[in-house]
Amino acid sequence: MTSSVPTIEIVALSQTFDLAQLFAPGEDQAVRVVRPEEVSNPERIEIALAWRPEGKAFDAYPNLKMVSSIAAGVDSILACPSLRQDTVVTRVRDHSQADLMAGFAAFQVIWHHRRMGDYIANQARHVWDRSFRPQAPGSVTVGVLGYGLMGRKCAMAIAAMGFRVVVARNSVSVVSEVVPDGVEVFAGPDAIHTVAAQADILVNILPLTDTTRDILDHDFFARMRKGAALVQMGRGEHMIEDDLLSALDSGHLSGASVDVFRQEPPEVDHPFWSHPKIMVTPHKASDTSPAEVLRQVLENFAALREGRLPPGLVNREAGY
Amino acid sequence: MTSSVPTIEIVALSQTFDLAQLFAPGEDQAVRVVRPEEVSNPERIEIALAWRPEGKAFDAYPNLKMVSSIAAGVDSILACPSLRQDTVVTRVRDHSQADLMAGFAAFQVIWHHRRMGDYIANQARHVWDRSFRPQAPGSVTVGVLGYGLMGRKCAMAIAAMGFRVVVARNSVSVVSEVVPDGVEVFAGPDAIHTVAAQADILVNILPLTDTTRDILDHDFFARMRKGAALVQMGRGEHMIEDDLLSALDSGHLSGASVDVFRQEPPEVDHPFWSHPKIMVTPHKASDTSPAEVLRQVLENFAALREGRLPPGLVNREAGY
Ligand SMILES: NC(=O)c1ccc[n+]([C@@H]2O[C@H](COP(=O)([O-])OP(=O)(O)OC[C@H]3O[C@@H](n4cnc5c(N)ncnc54)[C@H](OP(=O)(O)O)[C@@H]3O)[C@@H](O)[C@H]2O)c1
Ligand SMILES: NC(=O)c1ccc[n+]([C@@H]2O[C@H](COP(=O)([O-])OP(=O)(O)OC[C@H]3O[C@@H](n4cnc5c(N)ncnc54)[C@H](OP(=O)(O)O)[C@@H]3O)[C@@H](O)[C@H]2O)c1
Repeated sequence: MTSSVPTIEIVALSQTFDLAQLFAPGEDQAVRVVRPEEVSNPERIEIALAWRPEGKAFDAYPNLKMVSSIAAGVDSILACPSLRQDTVVTRVRDHSQADLMAGFAAFQVIWHHRRMGDYIANQARHVWDRSFRPQAPGSVTVGVLGYGLMGRKCAMAIAAMGFRVVVARNSVSVVSEVVPDGVEVFAGPDAIHTVAAQADILVNILPLTDTTRDILDHDFFARMRKGAALVQMGRGEHMIEDDLLSALDSGHLSGASVDVFRQEPPEVDHPFWSHPKIMVTPHKASDTSPAEVLRQVLENFAALREGRLPPGLVNREAGY
Repeated sequence: MTSSVPTIEIVALSQTFDLAQLFAPGEDQAVRVVRPEEVSNPERIEIALAWRPEGKAFDAYPNLKMVSSIAAGVDSILACPSLRQDTVVTRVRDHSQADLMAGFAAFQVIWHHRRMGDYIANQARHVWDRSFRPQAPGSVTVGVLGYGLMGRKCAMAIAAMGFRVVVARNSVSVVSEVVPDGVEVFAGPDAIHTVAAQADILVNILPLTDTTRDILDHDFFARMRKGAALVQMGRGEHMIEDDLLSALDSGHLSGASVDVFRQEPPEVDHPFWSHPKIMVTPHKASDTSPAEVLRQVLENFAALREGRLPPGLVNREAGY
C-alpha cells in the first residue's frame, strides 16, 4: 500500500504495556506506533507515547520534541530520569473518560451512602430487609480532592444526586470562575485537609505529584470524620495502604473503594482483596480509547509545530 | 400534659403497615395518628393517612375531607372502593426522596453499563481483569419512563454522568418548558414505546394507573433493543414478572434491577432472588421520613381549609 502522506513514526516507551500492539493502526492511519527495536532511525523520532517508561527510555532519541502520556496522568513520565528539560509533555484530555469517571464516582458514593453491598448480601440469602434508612443526600457531604478534567465532572454528577459537594483544588488564583450549584471549592495547600475534615464520603482524584505522594496516610485518615468512607481513584502512590487497613479495622472509617494500587496488579494475597469493607476494582474507574489517544497525540503535535499551545500540555513544574 | 392547641386526630388506614406506630408523634406535635379502633369520634375525622387501605376502610368516616398517601404513589388509595368522589387525595412530594431516587437510578445505570457485578465477582476470586471496555456514556442512551418529581431528578443525575437521556411523559400540553441539557422528552400515549425502543438502559419510574398497569410485558420487552437492561422502580404491577424472566433467559435483555414486586415482600422462592441477571432491592429505591410526611399532610390540609390548592394534590382522573 502506498500513500502520499509520509507515515509519522511514534516510539512506544513502556515497561508495563505493549503500546505498539495497543495502538496498532487502522487501515488509513498516517501514524505508526513502533517498539524501540523497530525504530528505523532514532534521530527522526520526534514523538513518544509513554506509560511507566524505563529510566533510560528517552536517551536514544536526541530530537524528541514531545512525549504524550496514554492517559490523564503523567507522573511516571515526569519521574523518568532520562526525560530532558526541553521535551514537551502532554496528556490525554478525553471528555468521555471524564464521563466514565463521574459515573464510577457516583456509583461508589451510592455504594457507601446506601450500603448497597448489604442488599447484595441479602439477595443471596433471599432476605427482604427494609430497615436501613439512608440519610437525606442534602445532609451528606461528599468531598472531592481534585477539580480538573476528572474531578469537575465527578463533583457535578455527585451534586446532581442531591449531595452537598466540597472540592479541593490547588490554585487560589483561578477560583473566581463560576462554580456549579451545590458545589463549594476550597483552594490552596490546606484545601485537601479542609475538605477531608468535612466529608462523609471522600473521593480522591488528584494527580500524583511531589506534593500529593503519600498524602492518604494515618494522620490524614485521623482528620476524617468518624464513619466516613473513602473512594480512592487517583494513583496508588497517594495512599499508605496499611494505614487504610488500620483506619478501617479500628472502625474510624466505615468503608473504602479502591481502584488504584501502589503495585498493579496487586499481589494475589494483597489484604484489600478479601477485606469486607473494601471494594476493589482493577484501575478501571475510567477508560480511554486508543483511537482517541492517537487523535489527541497528533493534535497536540500539530499545535506544537504551528507554535500553538498543545491542548493537552502539562505544566512540568506543577507536575500535572 | 395540657396544650392550648387541640390535637388533630388522623386515622391510619393500612393493611400492610402499622402507620400509627410508624408515625408516633414526637413531644410537641399537634397531631395524633391513631388506629381505626382508637378513634374517639369517627364523625370528627377529617384526615386519613393511607397505604393499601382495605376495601371498606373509608366507610366509617362520613366527614373525611382528605386522604394522604404516606408516599409518592396513590394507586392503592384510588383503587379503594370506599373512597368517595369528593375526598381530596394528596401525596408526599419530598425532594430529598427524589434525590435518593436519582442516586439509586444512577447507581443501577452504572451497575449495568460498567458490569460492576463482574468486578465484585472477580474481587471474591482475587482476579484483576481489565478486559471489559465500557462504551462512551455519550453513545449510550438511557430511557426514563416518567418525568415527574422522581423521573426528572433521575434524568438529570443520569445526564450528569454524560449519558444521552430520553424521557417519556404523559402530557403533550406542557412540553414547552425548559428541558435540561442532554435530556430529550417525548410525550403522549406512545412516548413509552418510543423511549423503550431507543434505550440501552431503561429506567421505569411511572405511577401505577389504569394506563400503566402491566405495561412491562412480553411485547414491550420485544420492542426494546437487544442487550438492553431494565431498572424497574415504579410499581410491581407495571410488570409481568414471568415476561421479564423470558426476556432475560432468551438473552434479549442483558440484565435487570428490580426494586418493586407484584407481591411485597416476594415469596422466599420467587425466581428473581437467585437469578444471576437480576439485582433485587427491597422497595428501597427511595425513602421518606415520617416527620416529613406528617409535615406535608398538615401543610396540605391547611391549604385545603384556606381554599388553596394543596401542594401534594393528586389528579384523581389521571390517577397520579
Ligand atoms: N483511576 C483511573 O482510572 C484514573 C483515570 C484518569 C485519571 N486518574 C487520576 O486522576 C488524576 C487527575 O486527572 P485530571 O484529568 O482531573 O487532572 P487535571 O485536569 O490535571 O486536574 C488535577 C486537579 O488536581 C488539583 N491538584 C493538584 N495538586 C493538588 C494539591 N496538592 N492539592 C489540591 N488540589 C490539587 C488541580 O488543582 P488546580 O485546578 O487548581 O490546578 C486540579 O484541579 C490523574 O492525574 C490520574 O492520577 C485516574
Ligand atoms: N420504588 C420506590 O421506592 C418508589 C418511591 C417513590 C415513587 N415510586 C413510584 O414512582 C412513581 C412516580 O413518582 P413521581 O413522584 O415522579 O410522580 P409524579 O410527579 O406524579 O410524575 C409521574 C410522571 O409519570 C408520567 N406519566 C404518567 N402516566 C404516563 C403514561 N401513561 N405515559 C407516560 N408518562 C406517564 C407523568 O407525565 P406528565 O408529567 O406529563 O403528567 C409524570 O411525568 C410513583 O407513583 C410510584 O409508583 C417508587
